[in-house]
Amino acid sequence: MAFDAIETPFGKIDRIVGGAATYIAYAASNFIQPILQVSIVGDDFPKEEMDELKRRGVQLNGVEIMAGKKSFFWSGRYHEDMNTRDTLITDLNVLADFNPKVPDNYQGAEFLMLGNLQPVIQMSVIKQLKKRPKLIVMDTMNFWMESAMPDLEEVLKHVDMLLINDAEARQLSGQFSLVKAARSILQMGPKYLIIKKGEHGALLFHEDNVFFAPALPLEEVFDPTGAGDTFAGGFIGHLAKTGDISFDNMKRGIIVGSAMASFCVEKFGPTRLKEINRKDIDIRIQMFKDLVNFDIELV
Amino acid sequence: MAFDAIETPFGKIDRIVGGAATYIAYAASNFIQPILQVSIVGDDFPKEEMDELKRRGVQLNGVEIMAGKKSFFWSGRYHEDMNTRDTLITDLNVLADFNPKVPDNYQGAEFLMLGNLQPVIQMSVIKQLKKRPKLIVMDTMNFWMESAMPDLEEVLKHVDMLLINDAEARQLSGQFSLVKAARSILQMGPKYLIIKKGEHGALLFHEDNVFFAPALPLEEVFDPTGAGDTFAGGFIGHLAKTGDISFDNMKRGIIVGSAMASFCVEKFGPTRLKEINRKDIDIRIQMFKDLVNFDIELV
Repeated sequence: MAFDAIETPFGKIDRIVGGAATYIAYAASNFIQPILQVSIVGDDFPKEEMDELKRRGVQLNGVEIMAGKKSFFWSGRYHEDMNTRDTLITDLNVLADFNPKVPDNYQGAEFLMLGNLQPVIQMSVIKQLKKRPKLIVMDTMNFWMESAMPDLEEVLKHVDMLLINDAEARQLSGQFSLVKAARSILQMGPKYLIIKKGEHGALLFHEDNVFFAPALPLEEVFDPTGAGDTFAGGFIGHLAKTGDISFDNMKRGIIVGSAMASFCVEKFGPTRLKEINRKDIDIRIQMFKDLVNFDIELV
Repeated sequence: MAFDAIETPFGKIDRIVGGAATYIAYAASNFIQPILQVSIVGDDFPKEEMDELKRRGVQLNGVEIMAGKKSFFWSGRYHEDMNTRDTLITDLNVLADFNPKVPDNYQGAEFLMLGNLQPVIQMSVIKQLKKRPKLIVMDTMNFWMESAMPDLEEVLKHVDMLLINDAEARQLSGQFSLVKAARSILQMGPKYLIIKKGEHGALLFHEDNVFFAPALPLEEVFDPTGAGDTFAGGFIGHLAKTGDISFDNMKRGIIVGSAMASFCVEKFGPTRLKEINRKDIDIRIQMFKDLVNFDIELV
């Protein structure tokens, strides 16, 4: 949970709430409540945002508020194609000292989504859970592959699913072909792999099965910040709601995640995610059905 | 119909048959025969290739053979990502004098696929057909947008469908967003637009409807040469076979085209297209169904 400053070809905002856990919570809470949030913020994090999250069934007793300190801050600028961005500022602030404590009332959680963070912090949360969740999904990024690879490899052995983008999959595996990259990553621990390709959709791999979901073709991508985390929140929210971790249901989860991400990019930060309701989401999911479903007779 | 020299990260071939019409004919002839080919070659074009095409129901009396002249020759080198390539040599040869004559026995053709060529040549073929085909599809490229835009605009007014890649759609429309590009191009004449995105699939636009088909995630793209033309051949071959030009059937056509293209890239030039049979194609189409189809209940 953090603050971002974002510049896109369409506009600029100096300070808006962000952070993987914020996006994941806003997305997932449409499908299941409570969301048991584990994070850290400074005393600058807005009370109104906390109240809004609580109103959506996000429990915050696992979110540490450090007095006299500032929340994590990221600032970035997107290029014309919106697929690449430059990081301008990364102020760790409270994140430098993050030592997550899982509250007692979080024990028994069946679905665990580990946002992108130091692998040792992700590992610490896994270890604090007395009963292993039914499904553990993790995100990560190139930075940890370069600076904490042994720790990352260890976490990979403890999770069910890894969720990364195409560049990260190539870096992690050393393979250019995403099919080969997937095969290699599925031998590192996770049984499921989602490779996010931004505007080009997402791939789900499990054993010899592959599923693909496109991103919705949008007139304008206004701000892609948080789209990947929103996808993750929608995905795991759908799985948690249904309690079904079959491959077929994961397909549905990817469509739900893609629908949520398609809202996220319409306005700055998580703004759009706070406006939509269940009906908006259903209409968007129907658009995905129309976009990809076809019926063909094989003769 | 031409010769290509191709260099990819995986290999190099100094001379192999190519050309849009060759790929289109090999792909389409799996679905409908006869294919009524209009093209021009030099007397260097191999008799065995002509015989192979004839064997597949491709009529060649519309293919002019110019004695003492050479066939069109293209040479290119693909980059590591296989999405971009450098043209090394373009020898027009016979193409410099191409003035297509549509044979009498071609009259009444219901489906016309215009491969990428000078717009005036494409227009000439349209004009020679006494009865307007049920569906006219055209391909084009950035070169004609830069050197023959008024001619290209004229052809666009006479076709039903334009089939181009994403960079070409952006150039033709002056719009970066493909959704906006599509809207703009659909006002130039064609009622249908297919935007090919290479390894990222293809989009079909018609009025407010959009359909998306992914490319099959392949372990290795060996040689992408001709994949777009093979896609076009599979697409129009399916439409011609079924005689159905509804939007729903175009969706199926795009899946068929994508399946054909997924074979094309497996070996140099059209090599792989000559090896496969109808059963291979059906298995590949089933892979597309498994890849994208999902079932979700909206509550």
